[in-house]
Parts: sequence; structure tokens; C-alpha cells
Amino acid sequence: MTDDITRLRARLDALDGELVTALNERARLSLAVRALKQDAALPLYDPARESRILERVGELNAGPLYDEQVQEVFRAILKVMKEARA
Amino acid sequence: MTDDITRLRARLDALDGELVTALNERARLSLAVRALKQDAALPLYDPARESRILERVGELNAGPLYDEQVQEVFRAILKVMKEARA
Repeated sequence: MTDDITRLRARLDALDGELVTALNERARLSLAVRALKQDAALPLYDPARESRILERVGELNAGPLYDEQVQEVFRAILKVMKEARA
Repeated sequence: MTDDITRLRARLDALDGELVTALNERARLSLAVRALKQDAALPLYDPARESRILERVGELNAGPLYDEQVQEVFRAILKVMKEARA
């Protein structure tokens, strides 16, 4: 394994740590929305909002990932958000 | 929809934009590793490295997401990284 690969992997590991933090921050915000919906007796599941999120991340995407790949990751993100504990 | 929910959704949208940026940065690093491996005639697929990444993000996780949920999102991330264009 070359030194360059080792260096790039260290950057990948650092970025993955930031992604873990961001995913949990997203879960906290998502749980806060859920609590407000429950208080207001609003439906918890909002497929139109999910579609808008997936559409928007595709629009924001500047590559090198394809829009469909970013959306595939976000489908996994939205799935686990729905299952997050309060 | 309450104003509080609208405010939280604006924060979620901002965070999603940051996630899209981070995912593409990850893809750039991952493609750079792939190019170096090709130059060095190293195998591109490294299941041991994937296992370490999944183990590590579970260890880094401080919640509210469960370790398994963070790992589920990272399985989707690693999958699209393998399919990313050069």
C-alpha cells in the first residue's frame, strides 16, 4: 500500500467521522420535528416532504456522484431517520 | 404546519446540502484511492477495509442514531462509492 493511499484513507476516515456527526445532528432535528408533529396531532409520515428532499438533493448535487447515487444514500438516511429513537 | 417545524426543516435542508457536499468530497477521495490502486496494480475491492470502516463508524457513533443505523447508511455510502464514475 503506498503512502499516498494511506494519506487519502486518513482523510476519508476524518470525513467519515464528520458524516457520523452530521447524521446524528440530522436525527436530532428530525426527532424534534416528530415531537412537534405529535404535539400538534399532525401525521408523522409525510411522503410529499420525502419526495421534495430527494428531488432537492439531486438538484444540489454537483458530482462526481450521480444524482441517483446521492438519492440512493438519502433514501437510506430517510429510512433510518424514521426508525430513530426519541 | 407550525413555525417551529418550518424552522427545523430549514435547518434540515441546510444540513442536507452539507451532506451532499461531504458525500461528493468522499467520492473524490475514494476515486483518488482507486486511481492509485490501479497505478500500483493493487486489487480495487478491499472487503477488510470496508469492514473496518463499518466497525469504526459504529464506534464513533454517539447517538441518537443506533450504531446499526449509522452502519446501514454507510453500507449505502460504500455501495455508491464503488459505482462512482472516474
